[in-house]
Amino acid sequence: MDYKSTGVDIDAGNEVVSRIRELARGTFTPGVLSDIGSFGGLFRPDLSAVADPVLVSSADGVGTKLKIAFLAGRHGTVGVDLVNHCVNDILAQGARPLFFMDYLATGQLSLKVTAEVMAGLATACSDNGCALLGGETAEMPGFYADGEYDLAGFVVGLVDRNSLVDGSQIEPGDSLIGLRSNGLHTNGYSLARHIVFDILSLPVDATVEELDGSVADILLRPHRSYLRLLGPVLADTAGAVKGLAHITGGGLTDNLPRVLPSGMAAEISRAVWTPPAIFRFLQDRGALTDGEAFRAFNMGIGMVVICGPNDTAGLLSRFEQAGEEGAVVIGRVVSGDGEVIYF
Amino acid sequence: MDYKSTGVDIDAGNEVVSRIRELARGTFTPGVLSDIGSFGGLFRPDLSAVADPVLVSSADGVGTKLKIAFLAGRHGTVGVDLVNHCVNDILAQGARPLFFMDYLATGQLSLKVTAEVMAGLATACSDNGCALLGGETAEMPGFYADGEYDLAGFVVGLVDRNSLVDGSQIEPGDSLIGLRSNGLHTNGYSLARHIVFDILSLPVDATVEELDGSVADILLRPHRSYLRLLGPVLADTAGAVKGLAHITGGGLTDNLPRVLPSGMAAEISRAVWTPPAIFRFLQDRGALTDGEAFRAFNMGIGMVVICGPNDTAGLLSRFEQAGEEGAVVIGRVVSGDGEVIYF
Repeated sequence: MDYKSTGVDIDAGNEVVSRIRELARGTFTPGVLSDIGSFGGLFRPDLSAVADPVLVSSADGVGTKLKIAFLAGRHGTVGVDLVNHCVNDILAQGARPLFFMDYLATGQLSLKVTAEVMAGLATACSDNGCALLGGETAEMPGFYADGEYDLAGFVVGLVDRNSLVDGSQIEPGDSLIGLRSNGLHTNGYSLARHIVFDILSLPVDATVEELDGSVADILLRPHRSYLRLLGPVLADTAGAVKGLAHITGGGLTDNLPRVLPSGMAAEISRAVWTPPAIFRFLQDRGALTDGEAFRAFNMGIGMVVICGPNDTAGLLSRFEQAGEEGAVVIGRVVSGDGEVIYF
Repeated sequence: MDYKSTGVDIDAGNEVVSRIRELARGTFTPGVLSDIGSFGGLFRPDLSAVADPVLVSSADGVGTKLKIAFLAGRHGTVGVDLVNHCVNDILAQGARPLFFMDYLATGQLSLKVTAEVMAGLATACSDNGCALLGGETAEMPGFYADGEYDLAGFVVGLVDRNSLVDGSQIEPGDSLIGLRSNGLHTNGYSLARHIVFDILSLPVDATVEELDGSVADILLRPHRSYLRLLGPVLADTAGAVKGLAHITGGGLTDNLPRVLPSGMAAEISRAVWTPPAIFRFLQDRGALTDGEAFRAFNMGIGMVVICGPNDTAGLLSRFEQAGEEGAVVIGRVVSGDGEVIYF
């Protein structure tokens, strides 16, 4: 008996590591000192222009969106979801990513699937100027169903303490500018799957008239990164952005209060934007109340920028110049107790 | 229909977050600027004594050791395994941990189990002087069997570039000092479980005469952290430690070569130390060849310190003074092609 007969194939694992190494090398930025396969990944941050360096870190998983990838047999985008989710989380505090580490766990390693997942991670890391510095690929027989895996990751970014976006300057009367999502991003998938597959019994490749693509196309659309849009804005307009809320699990309802100082609440005008068709479809077919839908899904808003009334027009024009479509004031900060009030 | 009926309970999730927040706060070091629940965790490293700061990061999972925790219903130590594994990985390059982030994924959140797991993470973080800065607790219905979960984490540490331990100065004739493990640490569990539960059909609470505790006691013994021992040694004896190999998956056979420069190999004298009883038990009952056993398990050596012949006695005496038992020269570096030769 050897180790392979118990389901753990160290040689296949080593082959995966060498494929990952190739993909990761393509993401390396000048800060990377180590190669994949060291015990730890080494990153030397450029601190020359940072007076008071603060590291900002976030951990996330892809969640049950993975089940759509399994059903569709498409594994190339879940890594994009994960990286962009993590990058947005630290961007919400004003940080730019330095490096990313992944955790991919599966019952039995498939070189093909692993390479697809890792290619998505690598592409998104490159797009965000973030090194894929390392990670763990775990073969865990008996933990995951055949063909399934879990995928999580961690990002580390840097911000000068003076440029931290922490919401502390937010005050009643400030504007809430909504930036559009391109779909569910990475949240609400247990509910969406229940509606699409259990209630409607749709196959994953079904085309629905009111949606612009198959179920798989729409539900797998990757989480947007707001770094390319917001990075330059944060750098150029010091202090104008008082707060950023990344709209993830819990929707606007739970995520906006995370950045509001105590004694404040948010008013949202739903009439200002039209949620993409997928949200109306899910709310209708799932018979969800507005309250349920706005807590389960982002409803078309992936990031909220909070700024003073005097900076609102400037930021909107800046977003428009950058080619961002549909950025709009969706509400304002009011006095209150952390609630989100929808009109 | 609401979100809860699909298996995702946002309110229970929020309760878990608040329990985690309490545990995490107990680990906070002066560098922590944020509280748990921010989009990203904020850490301001003290760089006052670091000429050329290098971040060292590692991601790991607990692997199938978790299955023993499930069987035994003991969830308090797997977090210790995870943190210590990660801490050792970056210690192998000379770094001290700054902060840790976890990823805990389960089918349905049990507040009790989650709190036990997180308490283990928090204890180990405190013991290693490392802040538990944040993490992700994911409820993924349909992914994990009832009562099961996966646990991964990642650590970020700091080292001055001048103090990096990178193996580059290793040369033939250098000593390999073995530091004892206290059991399987976090590797080889698929094979160990196969032997104990499939071949021998032992219950998890069985007591085996030749072992000093029940199956669960021995197989759940947490991964040692070598930081408390090696941290001061690295600080005081600049350059004496040329390389450190953390003996994880792949055993001495696969991990020693990771730190050897090209053109070198390792010779190991197995007669020098006696592997703890659990390893002899597993090798005997599993009818494993030495080659298999030394690649699946650490065989009693959890960390290898590589140093020049002139520094060997000094380091051994230093380890002894620190109360470390059983540290011994287990072999030496020779010319070769990355192989590990056992005598």
